[in-house]
Formats: sequence, structure tokens, C-alpha cells
Amino acid sequence: MMDRLMKRISELDAPVVVGLDPQLGFVPEQILQAAFAECGETLEGAGEAVWRFNKGLIDAVYDLIPAVKPQIAMYEQFGIPGLIACKKTVDYCHEKGLIVIGDVKRGDIGSTSAAYAAAHLGTVQVGSACLPVFDEDVVTVNPYLGSDGIVPFLKACESCGKGIFVLVKTSNPSSGEFQDRLIDGKPLYELVGEKVCEWGEAVPYEKYPAVGAVIGATYPEMGEKLRKLMPKTVFLVPGYGAQGAGAAELAPYFDQDGLGVIVNSSRGIIAAWKKEQYAKFGAEGFADAARAATLDMIEDLRSVK
Amino acid sequence: MMDRLMKRISELDAPVVVGLDPQLGFVPEQILQAAFAECGETLEGAGEAVWRFNKGLIDAVYDLIPAVKPQIAMYEQFGIPGLIACKKTVDYCHEKGLIVIGDVKRGDIGSTSAAYAAAHLGTVQVGSACLPVFDEDVVTVNPYLGSDGIVPFLKACESCGKGIFVLVKTSNPSSGEFQDRLIDGKPLYELVGEKVCEWGEAVPYEKYPAVGAVIGATYPEMGEKLRKLMPKTVFLVPGYGAQGAGAAELAPYFDQDGLGVIVNSSRGIIAAWKKEQYAKFGAEGFADAARAATLDMIEDLRSVK
Repeated sequence: MMDRLMKRISELDAPVVVGLDPQLGFVPEQILQAAFAECGETLEGAGEAVWRFNKGLIDAVYDLIPAVKPQIAMYEQFGIPGLIACKKTVDYCHEKGLIVIGDVKRGDIGSTSAAYAAAHLGTVQVGSACLPVFDEDVVTVNPYLGSDGIVPFLKACESCGKGIFVLVKTSNPSSGEFQDRLIDGKPLYELVGEKVCEWGEAVPYEKYPAVGAVIGATYPEMGEKLRKLMPKTVFLVPGYGAQGAGAAELAPYFDQDGLGVIVNSSRGIIAAWKKEQYAKFGAEGFADAARAATLDMIEDLRSVK
Repeated sequence: MMDRLMKRISELDAPVVVGLDPQLGFVPEQILQAAFAECGETLEGAGEAVWRFNKGLIDAVYDLIPAVKPQIAMYEQFGIPGLIACKKTVDYCHEKGLIVIGDVKRGDIGSTSAAYAAAHLGTVQVGSACLPVFDEDVVTVNPYLGSDGIVPFLKACESCGKGIFVLVKTSNPSSGEFQDRLIDGKPLYELVGEKVCEWGEAVPYEKYPAVGAVIGATYPEMGEKLRKLMPKTVFLVPGYGAQGAGAAELAPYFDQDGLGVIVNSSRGIIAAWKKEQYAKFGAEGFADAARAATLDMIEDLRSVK
């Protein structure tokens, strides 16, 4: 899957993933009102608004980018109707040829981890039927529980040709509370990075291991160090734009072929219509604003690698 | 919420939570067949089977125990119908007076973590409506991302009178890969434990802070150390029974009042009918087998604290 992702990035010359994290505050009034008129101010109404918003965004950007990253929390907050909108979004993105990175950050052990892997990457057995469930292509996974939490995902990666991104060094201000603490002179995130490389070797691949790493854009000197430690690993990089990091800081994240990286932007793109820079599009033009912001981001990233 | 949980444990003299982790392999054939006859070998069929199984179990044990712990992965693996079964289970447990500990192990940052907190503990704003979603009473949370991931949950704990259990030292064999690594001479799990105490002080409480800790039964010497470090914290203890730990090992987990602990058993109770010890109940008597196993577990734990 990471090989496929890198191929699409090369073809489009766009190491960009659009984060589909639809807070209702990002959804234009006309969509909210239409959804509420139909379903009321209910979880159903919120799910319908989110789905219409996403569809507009996807139609506007699908030809520019290799992948989208739905943040499942933003759907889970609207309960069953929110998760229905999530599943519709995943399926629609697949129709449009996009790779779907489910930002689920799941992490558990044994049969529980296997259940998450089945839910998001693999298939589940029901009687004699073998059924896909949410069916993303790649998911994010939390490493705190160790290999017991990761191995079931590796099995799903191998049997279904999927991938995972393991949290290594996250983009948030307090990520250092545990991740930066020194163990035998090395920060915890480096130990996790070493494990990511080891886990990656357990699943057959061509050039890019199926196990990637989440490395925040907001800590560029750590990104540089981790690239040296993990020369083959694909980095999923959050924190560009809204969280403060610019393209220039990201140069050391790329591998020797100018690949190995996919940079996420969520609100910078899906809520571009609310920013001064793209205000001319107005609420009606939210999708065009997202397209313009995506093109600007691609241009920005092309300038540095 | 932890005060309420301890009160119920005292009243029942039963520091026991039943893990509702319904793998289809645990569901008796007659329930599977009835559900499949109605809904087919589909995700809907699986969801229906899980719900019927859970209802039988809850009816059989609700008067013996303070709480249940649905493992959401086991529902998520059946997609939307599975999550509908999860929500029905949560609501039914509330009807029966049980405290519901959602074993969700979510962990993210900022607005994303707030969305998870809204989904599971709080309410979500949709237009002018403020709506409950999954509405568990307590959830498990992963600490790898640091305080940014926890603070939104603390807000929900305070505003809605709920609680969280933060993963500190998990019960699985590879939990030590990261959790046991020494930082300034102290294992990572101790640092996380210290943070749990700090987070717990940020939310008003009577005797038991709203922030508890997950401490596996399988590492009793660490449990003992952590009890000294965290004298007021409620411990959610997985790993009893199926994962190998017995009641005797758990004595040091209890606080000076013989409280502060809730021990989980999942398959040891919900799949008791498949064990030789309870085979006399048969598949038809799966719920009676669960009741007998719950009574045995309560008896076992009463003997040690």
C-alpha cells in the first residue's frame, strides 16, 4: 500500500493528504440549514451535513491529491449517523480513486487489536461470510501497548495489502511529555521509530514498508533525525499550516528520492473559505476555496523537496 | 463518578466489572442461528446476535456487579450494525442501573480529543441542540500524546460528572517494550502514573479522583509499587482469569480501605459456558453459566482484600 501511495504521489507530484475532519463550525451555513431542514438539529442532521460537505470537498480536490485522511473522532462525535457519514465518505473516496488513510489512532492488544484491524483494514467473519467493514486503506495506530498491539495490524496489512502509520513523534505541544523522555540516552520516540522499522520488515514490500510513521511537522530537527534513523519509512506529517509549520521546515523529512512523505492539512483546506486569503470564494464557494488552498499547498511543497 | 463507582462496589462487596467483549465465537449457536435467520450472515446479523447475547448476560448478572465494560473494538468490527448493538447495550445497562466503562482506548489531541470526549462522555452541539452520543460513564484513554490528549477528557469529566481510566501499565506480555523503559531511573509507566495523579487533581472529587489508571493484574509487583505512588487513584485491573492472574496477586492493588480497585473479567464470564467448570449449563444456559462465574469471581476476590 505504501508503494501504491508513493506511486500516486510521484504521478501527481503532490505529497499531500487532505484531512477530512468536518467540525460543524467548518460547514457553510447553506449546507447546515439544508441538512437540518431535512433531518432536524439531530445527530442525523449533523451526519447529513458532514456528508454533503465532504462530497463537495472531494469533488473539488480528488484529481489533485493521492489521498484523504478522515479523522474518525469528528464522525464518532455524531454517533451512529456520524459513522454512517464516515463510511459513505470512505466509499465515495474509493470511487474517486483516492487512497483513504483512516486517522483512527486505535491501539489495543491481541484479539481486540485484531478486531480493530478487521474493522478498518481487513474483513470480518460472520458465519460463512467474510465481509469488509469500514475498509480504509491505511490507518494510524498507537504504539503504547507494544508489539502485541501492532502484530494483528501487520497481519491485516499482509493479507489485504494495506498499511499503517504508527504514532512516533506527534505534532502537539505536549507530545514531549512522554515521547521526548530519554531512555538510555535516546528519546522514547526514537525507540518507537526503531520498532517501526522492525515491524515494517515483517510485511513483504517493494520499496516502501507497509508500516509508516506519524512525525509532526512542528518538530523539524526531530524529523531530520528520524529520517536518518528510518531511511525507508513513509512519514505521515501532521502540523503543516494551522499548527504552525511551513514547507521550508519539511525539506529534511523527504528521502533521497524526494519521496517518503505525505503532508496533511485539514482545516487549512476544508475551512479555507473562512480564511481571509480565500474569502473571495464565499461560503457558497467553499469547495473552490478548498481547491485553491490545495493547489497552493502543493505548490508550496514542490518548492522545498 | 469514581466516588459513585466505589460506593456501588462497597454496597455489593464486589470489585468486579464484566467485560462485554462479544466475539462471535463466544455466542451460543442458538442465538447466532436465530439472528442469521432474521438478518442473514451480514453485519446486521452479527450486530443482532451480539445484542441478544449481551442482553442475556446483562439480565443474568446486573444485580451482582457495579459495572460492565464493553470493549468497543468488538462492536466496531461489525461496522455500523455493531456500533448500534454497542449503543443499545450501553442504554440497556443504564436501565439496569449499571455503570458503563467504555473500553475505547481513544487518544488524540485538541479538538479531536474533545470530539472523542463528547462522543463518549459528554454531549455534542448540533445547531441549538446539545445531544448525548454514546454516553458511557467512564472511558479508557491512551496517554502517548501527553496532556493535550487528556485535558479535553478532564473537561468532560468535570462538566458531566464522568471519569476516565488512563492506560498506565497494561496486562499484555509486550507491555514492557515501551512502558517499562527507564527514564531517569524510573519506568515510563511510573511517569505516566505520576501524571495520572496530577490530572486527577484538576477535577473536583470527594474521595476518589475522576482520573483512574489501567494497571494489569499480570504484573503484581508493579501494581504494588503503583499503589504506593498513587494512593488515591482507582485502578481498573484487566488480566484476571483468562490472562493468567489470580486473586491472591491482587491484594496489594487495594487501598487501605480495601477499595480503589475494579477487576475486569471478560471471556472468563461471558464465555464461561464453554469452560469445563461450567459445562453443565450448556449453550442454552450461557447466561446462568455467566452468573455462576461472576459469583465465583466475587467470592475469589472477597477472599484476598
